[in-house]
Amino acid sequence: MPSASSDSNAIVLAFSGGLDTSFCVPYLRERGWEVHTVFADTGGVDAEERAYIEQRAQELGAASHVTVDGGPAIWDGFVKPFVWAGEGYQGQYPLLVSDRYLIVDAALARAAELGTDAIAHGCTGMGNDQVRFDLAVKAQGSYRIVAPIREIQKEHTQTRAYEQAFLEERGFEVRAKQKSYTINENLLGVTLSGGEIDHWKAPGEGARGWCRPRAEWPAEPLKVTVAFEKGEAVALDGERLPGAEILARLNGLFAAYGVGRGMYTGDTTIGLKGRIVYEAPGIVALLTAHRALEEAVLSKQQNRFKPEVARKWVEVVYEGFFHDPVKTDLEAFLASSQATVNGEVVLETSGARVDAVEIRSPHILNAKGAVYAQSADWGVEEAEGFIKLFGMSSTLWAEVNR
Amino acid sequence: MPSASSDSNAIVLAFSGGLDTSFCVPYLRERGWEVHTVFADTGGVDAEERAYIEQRAQELGAASHVTVDGGPAIWDGFVKPFVWAGEGYQGQYPLLVSDRYLIVDAALARAAELGTDAIAHGCTGMGNDQVRFDLAVKAQGSYRIVAPIREIQKEHTQTRAYEQAFLEERGFEVRAKQKSYTINENLLGVTLSGGEIDHWKAPGEGARGWCRPRAEWPAEPLKVTVAFEKGEAVALDGERLPGAEILARLNGLFAAYGVGRGMYTGDTTIGLKGRIVYEAPGIVALLTAHRALEEAVLSKQQNRFKPEVARKWVEVVYEGFFHDPVKTDLEAFLASSQATVNGEVVLETSGARVDAVEIRSPHILNAKGAVYAQSADWGVEEAEGFIKLFGMSSTLWAEVNR
Amino acid sequence: MPSASSDSNAIVLAFSGGLDTSFCVPYLRERGWEVHTVFADTGGVDAEERAYIEQRAQELGAASHVTVDGGPAIWDGFVKPFVWAGEGYQGQYPLLVSDRYLIVDAALARAAELGTDAIAHGCTGMGNDQVRFDLAVKAQGSYRIVAPIREIQKEHTQTRAYEQAFLEERGFEVRAKQKSYTINENLLGVTLSGGEIDHWKAPGEGARGWCRPRAEWPAEPLKVTVAFEKGEAVALDGERLPGAEILARLNGLFAAYGVGRGMYTGDTTIGLKGRIVYEAPGIVALLTAHRALEEAVLSKQQNRFKPEVARKWVEVVYEGFFHDPVKTDLEAFLASSQATVNGEVVLETSGARVDAVEIRSPHILNAKGAVYAQSADWGVEEAEGFIKLFGMSSTLWAEVNR
Amino acid sequence: MPSASSDSNAIVLAFSGGLDTSFCVPYLRERGWEVHTVFADTGGVDAEERAYIEQRAQELGAASHVTVDGGPAIWDGFVKPFVWAGEGYQGQYPLLVSDRYLIVDAALARAAELGTDAIAHGCTGMGNDQVRFDLAVKAQGSYRIVAPIREIQKEHTQTRAYEQAFLEERGFEVRAKQKSYTINENLLGVTLSGGEIDHWKAPGEGARGWCRPRAEWPAEPLKVTVAFEKGEAVALDGERLPGAEILARLNGLFAAYGVGRGMYTGDTTIGLKGRIVYEAPGIVALLTAHRALEEAVLSKQQNRFKPEVARKWVEVVYEGFFHDPVKTDLEAFLASSQATVNGEVVLETSGARVDAVEIRSPHILNAKGAVYAQSADWGVEEAEGFIKLFGMSSTLWAEVNR
Repeated sequence: MPSASSDSNAIVLAFSGGLDTSFCVPYLRERGWEVHTVFADTGGVDAEERAYIEQRAQELGAASHVTVDGGPAIWDGFVKPFVWAGEGYQGQYPLLVSDRYLIVDAALARAAELGTDAIAHGCTGMGNDQVRFDLAVKAQGSYRIVAPIREIQKEHTQTRAYEQAFLEERGFEVRAKQKSYTINENLLGVTLSGGEIDHWKAPGEGARGWCRPRAEWPAEPLKVTVAFEKGEAVALDGERLPGAEILARLNGLFAAYGVGRGMYTGDTTIGLKGRIVYEAPGIVALLTAHRALEEAVLSKQQNRFKPEVARKWVEVVYEGFFHDPVKTDLEAFLASSQATVNGEVVLETSGARVDAVEIRSPHILNAKGAVYAQSADWGVEEAEGFIKLFGMSSTLWAEVNR
Repeated sequence: MPSASSDSNAIVLAFSGGLDTSFCVPYLRERGWEVHTVFADTGGVDAEERAYIEQRAQELGAASHVTVDGGPAIWDGFVKPFVWAGEGYQGQYPLLVSDRYLIVDAALARAAELGTDAIAHGCTGMGNDQVRFDLAVKAQGSYRIVAPIREIQKEHTQTRAYEQAFLEERGFEVRAKQKSYTINENLLGVTLSGGEIDHWKAPGEGARGWCRPRAEWPAEPLKVTVAFEKGEAVALDGERLPGAEILARLNGLFAAYGVGRGMYTGDTTIGLKGRIVYEAPGIVALLTAHRALEEAVLSKQQNRFKPEVARKWVEVVYEGFFHDPVKTDLEAFLASSQATVNGEVVLETSGARVDAVEIRSPHILNAKGAVYAQSADWGVEEAEGFIKLFGMSSTLWAEVNR
Repeated sequence: MPSASSDSNAIVLAFSGGLDTSFCVPYLRERGWEVHTVFADTGGVDAEERAYIEQRAQELGAASHVTVDGGPAIWDGFVKPFVWAGEGYQGQYPLLVSDRYLIVDAALARAAELGTDAIAHGCTGMGNDQVRFDLAVKAQGSYRIVAPIREIQKEHTQTRAYEQAFLEERGFEVRAKQKSYTINENLLGVTLSGGEIDHWKAPGEGARGWCRPRAEWPAEPLKVTVAFEKGEAVALDGERLPGAEILARLNGLFAAYGVGRGMYTGDTTIGLKGRIVYEAPGIVALLTAHRALEEAVLSKQQNRFKPEVARKWVEVVYEGFFHDPVKTDLEAFLASSQATVNGEVVLETSGARVDAVEIRSPHILNAKGAVYAQSADWGVEEAEGFIKLFGMSSTLWAEVNR
Repeated sequence: MPSASSDSNAIVLAFSGGLDTSFCVPYLRERGWEVHTVFADTGGVDAEERAYIEQRAQELGAASHVTVDGGPAIWDGFVKPFVWAGEGYQGQYPLLVSDRYLIVDAALARAAELGTDAIAHGCTGMGNDQVRFDLAVKAQGSYRIVAPIREIQKEHTQTRAYEQAFLEERGFEVRAKQKSYTINENLLGVTLSGGEIDHWKAPGEGARGWCRPRAEWPAEPLKVTVAFEKGEAVALDGERLPGAEILARLNGLFAAYGVGRGMYTGDTTIGLKGRIVYEAPGIVALLTAHRALEEAVLSKQQNRFKPEVARKWVEVVYEGFFHDPVKTDLEAFLASSQATVNGEVVLETSGARVDAVEIRSPHILNAKGAVYAQSADWGVEEAEGFIKLFGMSSTLWAEVNR
């Protein structure tokens, strides 16, 4: 629990430089807060944008601004266990919103430095991110949470117009932003929603992030070798790299071939249907390689049960329970299951789909190192006995009831 | 239970015309059986091959031969509930071996006609198919099962050479078959195994079934509309068709774009690792369309639990328990869940991957028919209340333990 | 969806005669409603109390009052599928609150008769019953829900005192009720909470419902035979009876021996811990008999998977999703699983615990009708083969990794 | 993997002094083995019986005999994780056969001392114990397994008579054993099978182990306080004791009140139905106390998912996969979940059933330390908001489809 002073007027604002969090700075200041902005860089921006964000915070009157490199945190805190788990939400969506949890952590760390227990965020009262943000904060201590956009929504329906007017009245420029889609971008990938996607129609040509269309794919297939140690990617084509760097490179390599794009309709935390397009080339490549290795080295019992644990982990993370103790328990299972997930996987794509074409590991469960067809070291009687006893209950049922 | 005579010397042999089942005919005859061959045509062959199979059976001395159109049975008995379930074995493999169960049914139906309780199959004692074959027979009555290949394996290790010599000694020609891979083909798709695939290496150029490589894909994207009623595909681009015909057409359409190819390592029933390449363009297209529709029309509670049922159904079918009563129970759940899975889905591909780009249904769970962002009919206090109570247990845990 | 008039001023109040719902009658009348009370008799009261409730409703100014026999509805709508499912919430609690759902149904049926869409209930804003009540109503149409106690809680903290004063000011007597515990009683059983139970202490002597303490148990053991058809209890000691009557008799018989009492701490829908004592002699007897029969007649595959379905059904019912389509799906599975759950079970108790001592059914999965030890119709080689292939993956893992 | 010599003629026999393992000694000796007997004392015998077993081994010609105190191993290796898991096989049976795994470990340890890789056991080829024994051995190395009873069953059907004659011919006395039931007894409890139990009838008066009938229960209720640290019982009524000693004392205390007796029909590993009576007073008391503590201190998310892990752990242990890596993974989850399972639980019984009447722990998830009814720190609007969003998907489904 934070030993922070609950009468400090310092507040830490998770800041992205967009309209919502820009609005928050003067809004909070006018309510007596000393606003300290934190930008957790999880990979969606370049150096120029990073500089703009810092300058924007200062211009809006932030008492301090810090930029945090979110890459290592997002790898260790999310990507590593997510790849261990090995499946997306509803079997598909690779949880690209999970950077929120690391943003919360960065904000709480800054609050500890400043000795305050006040945290602000720019989430609306209509979406799912507020659940993730609020629950992640509450699970780490008795913080005061201020959500300015949620506050103005109690009075105003056209909040974006209200925010814009509020900023302009105070002499702050507002970047024109006439986008057809709501776009979210970070190290994990790109999410696109809104427009015709919301209307269950085919996404328009503009609904595109990193993934190149077929016309632009390189002519030659791509082959990449990923090395794993205890289920964590540690090297690319033989070069040892930090995880976040591996993911960034895979994003670049596979986006060029249009790998990792998908669309799905999710049952969101607040109970609505949310249809989105997502592009996660690196994550999809990692999942493919990791799964192929696991299939070869885990026991049948492990492969049978692990998906139950994986699905729960995914739901827990999706719904905001990032700090519930059950997540710790689930990750203890997952970490244990990775003891033999060591080896190399060759990925190949000629576009749109990636295959794990080759697997190398000392832990592959080969029968006496032999290949399938010749590997049998049991006799036919034994096979017959297996079938008889394996099917016993079913056969008895048929004898009694048919 | 069959009321068949257990002293009949008639035996029904599931016959494919290949080496193993060709061997079975004279082998069984020489042991006193009157051999009646059944070929259940589940889609892997053309008319010429069908005629060859019939002629081959007669030449080998079969007392009778019948060819059964397995399409309708495989659609109703397997494809329909499999698409309802919506996922493959180990999350991937679309159970392409499931035609075995329909072949068993065809053989048992023939046995009933003939008044015998003797059934023969050409499975070896080393593989998984014998489990499926034997359990599917045993679950439907007290049949006598004869498995000639398994019998000769008790004495001989080089069974294929033995079979070939056996046939040639008796004057039967044996088709030269020098294939690098074991290939299995039916209406559901193509399975390839053996060779370097068994050695965890990249499949060679020859390891290819229906799916065209990128160089041969049509230039223009493909758009197809699939209509569903209670979760069953009933029409293609507006044309109502029998299910087996829909699947056959989808196979052709999407194979041209290389859709539906994959490779994975399975934990087989007998406990070995089996790595295979599979191509199931039609099934993959159906699963994609059906899943997209389900995501839009099922309640969150349904989407959360249905995968548990699906996974169990898949395991049960994979492992040979096609007639266990639990499968009936699981299908009762699945059928019930399809009540509102009505509507049309537009599938699109430009190669390798298929997307469900448009969904039309009167059952889509839209909030008041509005789009996501504007659809909220709750207030901010309500959202805050939701978050507080939804996260209550987690927050209390943090208060008590952090 | 109800075609009811949304401008009717008639409102249906689920009425029990207690303080909360008594308060609701004048409170609603003073706000312009014509109040129609419904008492769904689910078994907690005798004829005298029933008459009191009716007279009380009239005295308070109800425009009409109806008493509905809730027994058949609670049997068909809850007890039957609950016994099929076979386990309580968190493995223990037999969902004694589920009468709420049938009370809602009775109220909605009355609303349809009256042509109104307004429903009132006496739940507070602090508990879990409001979730069950509100969601059960919302899932059946666009009703107007009025919750007077919740409304006054927005202004007043001591609501019971406020309600009492409100009634007394208007000349209505209030029955003195100085109970140490909150007690809930219906056909399903008795729930006790509050007092030292809330403080994690041993329940006091007064925390007792139907279940007799050891000193009062009859000297002789009790033996009762329950007959099941498709998993539903249909007869007691050979006498065919309606389900609700069977449950009532079992309550009486087993309460005399103290069977069915338990205490547990539940994770409630709103996220708090709720510790309660419950007594459900009849339900516990039914569950014991039904489970014993199922163990004998279901296939191993059924026994393995059914608990997953059961647990989900229980959670769904506990949390208010009584009308979510997933419940229909789950019950389709459960109903299918009961096809062979026919037979008789002899229950015996000499106090506190009930055992299913004898099982009779034509569906018992006996190997050739023989007893266990002598029943084996397999050879030792077959057993060895079974062990080898059954453990293959595990053994390979050990060979490779140890 | 054992570095043992595979040409040693020393063999370790798991020895109990009963007919089967007595037979094994001369049988093995006559086949050239130097027989080393190990008796793993897991609690079913007294000092006299222990001495008899040792003397018997010597008399039969064992080259050496060792008695191992199995108590600590069975506590650490089985009881501790089993209580963490918290439920029996098929929700009931407390896995009393699990001492087999510790017996295997004792035998393998002895084999390592002797430098041999040959292990013998007295299991028959008809039961489930051979699966547990064989798989537990195979999972720990490439041992030679000799199962004399299984060997003679290949030739003889009346094996017990054969064994008796074999021993008597060689001058070894055979203890007369005319028991109605097969009885198995160890620290964990007593299992009874055979006779009328196999015939689905009420167990006779003789089918009784430790649990006293009602007529013999002490007049006064029993109260016992169990203290847990990280989910492991560490003290009884304030006295710190080794786990095996706690279990032994609880067995004595609760058996006097008839607690822990049950009967059920299990789906065994080899697919038959096995009906048994079991008595496990200490285990049942531990489970009751532990569950009550967990309910109070685990988060709702933990309580919801942990049963999935528990059930899998139980199945894995029941079916022989005691050393599969999945068990390690499952125990990692379980151990993690016990971090806050610290505190004391007061158990009380007046006969047949045990209740956890009081719970003390600093980790109880009380809302602000207050009791349930007064603990709400949310407003009515928040509750309404929770209900609306929590039920959103269900309500939308009703709006669209009803």
